[in-house]
Amino acid sequence: MSQEGEGKVTLLDCWVSPFCMRVKIALAEKGVNYETREENLFGGKSQLLLNSNPIYQKVPVLIHNGRPLCESTVIVGYIEDTWTSPPLLPSDAYGRAQARFWVDYVDKKLFDAARSVWMTKGEAQEAAKKELIEVMEALEEVLGDKEYFGGDSFGYVDIEIIPFTSWFLASEKFGNFKLEGYCPKITAWTKRCLQRESVAKVVPDPEKVCEFVMMMRKMQGMK
Amino acid sequence: MSQEGEGKVTLLDCWVSPFCMRVKIALAEKGVNYETREENLFGGKSQLLLNSNPIYQKVPVLIHNGRPLCESTVIVGYIEDTWTSPPLLPSDAYGRAQARFWVDYVDKKLFDAARSVWMTKGEAQEAAKKELIEVMEALEEVLGDKEYFGGDSFGYVDIEIIPFTSWFLASEKFGNFKLEGYCPKITAWTKRCLQRESVAKVVPDPEKVCEFVMMMRKMQGMK
Repeated sequence: MSQEGEGKVTLLDCWVSPFCMRVKIALAEKGVNYETREENLFGGKSQLLLNSNPIYQKVPVLIHNGRPLCESTVIVGYIEDTWTSPPLLPSDAYGRAQARFWVDYVDKKLFDAARSVWMTKGEAQEAAKKELIEVMEALEEVLGDKEYFGGDSFGYVDIEIIPFTSWFLASEKFGNFKLEGYCPKITAWTKRCLQRESVAKVVPDPEKVCEFVMMMRKMQGMK
Repeated sequence: MSQEGEGKVTLLDCWVSPFCMRVKIALAEKGVNYETREENLFGGKSQLLLNSNPIYQKVPVLIHNGRPLCESTVIVGYIEDTWTSPPLLPSDAYGRAQARFWVDYVDKKLFDAARSVWMTKGEAQEAAKKELIEVMEALEEVLGDKEYFGGDSFGYVDIEIIPFTSWFLASEKFGNFKLEGYCPKITAWTKRCLQRESVAKVVPDPEKVCEFVMMMRKMQGMK
């Protein structure tokens, strides 16, 4: 472990946030000890969160030796840079760029599409389902016949995508459709990832995510 | 120059795209020789562009030894990784993470806000002006009294932000307001950056960008 990697690590966390899951899986893969502070998203945000992330006021925030880091992809990049072993990104520049391209694609498209499926109705919901299926088909093609997105070993792209799979059941339930037929390889990859301790410990039961989504829908006046 | 950095470099380009400007400034800072192919955005996209960037079908695309790279921030990261001297990112992990956080913030907010000012009217335009001013005030605070975003030398965050300043005149003209009063330090920084050859050669005259914007507005049925 490099000098830079030592010291106190605290995560401002929320169990259901796929963005927080990314950070927890990356920390587990690197063998970093950390403490979590669960934010109560319905009971007001902590002063520590507001001070640490004044721009977005959102979890996850990683505080390393008193210095806050925000935005999950930036945080996972920092973890990769700080605790260098084992490496999560490919060793060649082109492989790293491709990994970052797909994570950027997921950041732009996946969560919004999945959320829109359970937060809308009618035409908007149909459009969201179509978008979500398109995203998953694109990822299916990128994964191809590889074990993991980076090849034989679990790494950066896997960490950035796997948390979202725990939210798919909610999209399927409220969208009345099934994703599996569109992306069987991703479905098999999901099961493979869930066998890893770093993932299994962090990614919640999709039924619990559904209960959370039901609460979110009720708060928005949806049945 | 590393082995990885050798070979043929082609940029699928558009003179007015701030995203293409980022790539050209980064290549110039690294002293990389490359050829450009100007895409005619009103005359149909080239087959090379469609094949190289099937997901977004947008410039910039950098083709290095036959392998395409898409999305300007991913490309600039690849340039930094491949041609390692001079480094554009800070040498410490926290500094790199902060740089990536602010570039991500700009990617999420700046261009959309600036475009909305010249593409909308009435309340939507007022909201866009407010958003653009907020973004610029945030960046003003980040820059502070430093010469450049990274400190004493021109680097990653400067490269990623400076192209957008050539579009501000269009927002000001069609939004009937002035940004300078809200961000005098950014205004001084802009002048400083424009004195660099890598920037001056690439960033167009804001009046020419205004002419382009007028054409875009006409195509959308606006006067």
